[in-house]
Amino acid sequence: MYLPEHFAENRSEEIDRLVDAFPLAAIVAQTEAGLVANHIPLLRDGEKKLIGHVALANDMHRDIADESQVLAIFRADHAYISPNWYPSKEQTHKSVPTWNYQAIHITGRIRFDHSEKFKRAVVGKLTRHFERRTSGDKAWRMADAPADYMEMMLANIVGFEMTVDRVIAKSKLSQNRDQADYESVVKNLEGAGSPELAKTMRALDR
Amino acid sequence: MYLPEHFAENRSEEIDRLVDAFPLAAIVAQTEAGLVANHIPLLRDGEKKLIGHVALANDMHRDIADESQVLAIFRADHAYISPNWYPSKEQTHKSVPTWNYQAIHITGRIRFDHSEKFKRAVVGKLTRHFERRTSGDKAWRMADAPADYMEMMLANIVGFEMTVDRVIAKSKLSQNRDQADYESVVKNLEGAGSPELAKTMRALDR
Repeated sequence: MYLPEHFAENRSEEIDRLVDAFPLAAIVAQTEAGLVANHIPLLRDGEKKLIGHVALANDMHRDIADESQVLAIFRADHAYISPNWYPSKEQTHKSVPTWNYQAIHITGRIRFDHSEKFKRAVVGKLTRHFERRTSGDKAWRMADAPADYMEMMLANIVGFEMTVDRVIAKSKLSQNRDQADYESVVKNLEGAGSPELAKTMRALDR
Repeated sequence: MYLPEHFAENRSEEIDRLVDAFPLAAIVAQTEAGLVANHIPLLRDGEKKLIGHVALANDMHRDIADESQVLAIFRADHAYISPNWYPSKEQTHKSVPTWNYQAIHITGRIRFDHSEKFKRAVVGKLTRHFERRTSGDKAWRMADAPADYMEMMLANIVGFEMTVDRVIAKSKLSQNRDQADYESVVKNLEGAGSPELAKTMRALDR
């Protein structure tokens, strides 16, 4: 990923926040069939691992050999930024359109696991994580489903873990604009239906 | 991309709508340096082409040879779906968490173009497209910027076009649930801050 220094995201807590808040990664790999990508929710599991699962019917676990390098692309909110939004435009007219976004690219080695023990652990961790934030104290639990149904569901998936080799993160958030332009972009994003991106920009210490 | 029949998106007008509405593609390629991905707004240009541009400083146009195959991943809104949201859960408890999303994968051959004529045409088309919908009748035009500034900006980018070979599209939108579950998912998405995804599901003829 092209990464000019002023857009490099070096805050590990922001990288963790983005992976947690936008967990649906595009996992990309080069296979004999060409480039393949699948959209899979991933969960951080310790410092150096991501875990997830795919359908048994998904060829991904057959086409990607264990220990192959894959790229997991996480992307947060994004929006078009109009030159009209920069107050400085009125003076100099030296502005062009751009796009603001945040992206995390995690490269690592994938290992698939067919054991029920591993799959049950992965599904349990994912469920607890997503249910806690979606359903709060009414969180759905695996034990809510009949045991034979859950066994059948587990038989139809494959678990995996990705051992992280490299993390590249980019927060392209108008850091290259002066304060007045920056604040105007934030206000315009709020008006243009991107309040979350505006909030992320407000939180940026620049 | 794993694509069960009931999630296959075969409506060409929906595919075009998603590419237009979520144009920030992740362009992925296998290079000598490994898998690389860059987030680039793309515009449909006729039936079989996508156009865009990257910074001259972006190694992408050096690392990816002309006519190489690249994968452009477009993704629309997405959200976690809790089993708690299915009314049928109360009867059978046979439900597990999932994720709803729409994704378009376009595979094609890329060709970079350094000529000012090509770059000016690409930037002009992108600007008209995005300004029309963002700024309406106050659309910013390239002619609003000083000519020497625009020449400098054009000198710092590389244009490209992608000739489309294959399009795979997935709309994973709870089509496998009964009507009561489906409607409840839509209502819960509205409440959980995903009104656009709910709207897309409401528009689905199922």
